[in-house]
Amino acid sequence: MTRPFLIEQIFAKQSYLCIGLDTDITKIPKHLQSSPDAVFEFNKQIIDATKNLCVSYKINTAFYEALGSKGWEALEQTVNYIPKEHFKIADAKRGDIGNTSSQYAKAFFETLNFDAITVAPYMGEDSVKPFLAYKNKWAIVLALTSNAGSKDFEQQKIGDEFLYERILRKVNEWGNIDNLMFVVGATKAKDFESIRKIIPHHFLLVPGVGSQGGSLEDVSKYGMNKDGGLLINVSRAIIYASDKENFAEEARDVAQQYQTEMKKYLAGFLQ
Amino acid sequence: MTRPFLIEQIFAKQSYLCIGLDTDITKIPKHLQSSPDAVFEFNKQIIDATKNLCVSYKINTAFYEALGSKGWEALEQTVNYIPKEHFKIADAKRGDIGNTSSQYAKAFFETLNFDAITVAPYMGEDSVKPFLAYKNKWAIVLALTSNAGSKDFEQQKIGDEFLYERILRKVNEWGNIDNLMFVVGATKAKDFESIRKIIPHHFLLVPGVGSQGGSLEDVSKYGMNKDGGLLINVSRAIIYASDKENFAEEARDVAQQYQTEMKKYLAGFLQ
Repeated sequence: MTRPFLIEQIFAKQSYLCIGLDTDITKIPKHLQSSPDAVFEFNKQIIDATKNLCVSYKINTAFYEALGSKGWEALEQTVNYIPKEHFKIADAKRGDIGNTSSQYAKAFFETLNFDAITVAPYMGEDSVKPFLAYKNKWAIVLALTSNAGSKDFEQQKIGDEFLYERILRKVNEWGNIDNLMFVVGATKAKDFESIRKIIPHHFLLVPGVGSQGGSLEDVSKYGMNKDGGLLINVSRAIIYASDKENFAEEARDVAQQYQTEMKKYLAGFLQ
Repeated sequence: MTRPFLIEQIFAKQSYLCIGLDTDITKIPKHLQSSPDAVFEFNKQIIDATKNLCVSYKINTAFYEALGSKGWEALEQTVNYIPKEHFKIADAKRGDIGNTSSQYAKAFFETLNFDAITVAPYMGEDSVKPFLAYKNKWAIVLALTSNAGSKDFEQQKIGDEFLYERILRKVNEWGNIDNLMFVVGATKAKDFESIRKIIPHHFLLVPGVGSQGGSLEDVSKYGMNKDGGLLINVSRAIIYASDKENFAEEARDVAQQYQTEMKKYLAGFLQ
């Protein structure tokens, strides 16, 4: 997917919501658990109910791998089911030496038809570049994550900047605003101001709103740019809104609340 | 697998060789490529031919994911085929927020019966700890890797130490020598001396010997401890030793050369 198309979708839908399909078979409604395709069936109903309210779906590969090759099949079914106008993210956090990263890029961009994959930057340039070599595909590189452990290394100082700031500057040299985004957690909303000074134009994938407690208003206020520039991911708060038979309807209601709030911020905070 | 059992295997076989099954379907011998189970068939013959010469097999998940759910099935078949006395490593470089890392741990330690998984440390404590919560299973955390990109972040200074040294010290607080190893690339053999001052007793998984040019002698000299303490991985130089019908025999010959050399170093360099 191209950047102009993504921006067009955001303004057409008045939404920068990404819904995270972290589908845990032990948490989906009881009436679906016995289905042979329980995970896909759950995802399908969530997608049908929410697709008009979001511009992106993010599939967390861990939850599918936990089920073995059957889980990998559910992942394939799910990515094939997502409408083509949605930005499809493999939240896989891959990254390895060059010839191995190339295989991961092949896995997610060719074998599976994802638009983007999340990438761990620790191993440096040759571990990231293979994901930037595909036209209209995206690497979304981890910068400042939303978890407590982000203090251990990401927020340590290298010279006069944090490691995550060094990563933003350095990785920015390897890609551009058409093939590169960064992960920045919503739990550090005040840091978006300094981050936007380093990378004013890139899209940011923002986890941490919803179950992890980040503020959508603050992230939008400090992180938005003139193109929107944000994809806010919400996973558990939407997909597990209810464990009853009407789970998809309840998920839609929560997604609707986010979209309504986003519409307001798109009117108020564009910079 | 327990640490004492691994050490016993190393001294019984006089080998600390780990064979990397980075099985690329485009590189395996022509006569196998049309087989419906080509990847597994190749791995099976490599394992049969080399199992007496190595103590470990490392499966690089990228090469299997590139084939989609069929590849994931080949991965399952392969890990099930490896004899139980071999230390089975998923070279997957996973790592995410706690509840997601728990799913990856489940995927590789429960759904698949690996002994160990390689883990990317960037996201800190809660991303690593779920892999340390299993009895007789291991997290092998990336420290100093063998690729050119290791200079970009791993070898940057935080205070008076390199980032990878900070990671060795910090991650060491979260685990112990019975559930934690580190990845240290063979291409930086001189650095093993300073690394052994930080973590004298841990096992190290060492990529970079073979096609990447690291010296087995230097790594053994500077990296070995009294238990051996090294697992030296060789992938391409062994599994692609020949693309003819006798590929397994040729792979065995190369593995034999490594084992012969290792026997010498186990006699000479134990510290």
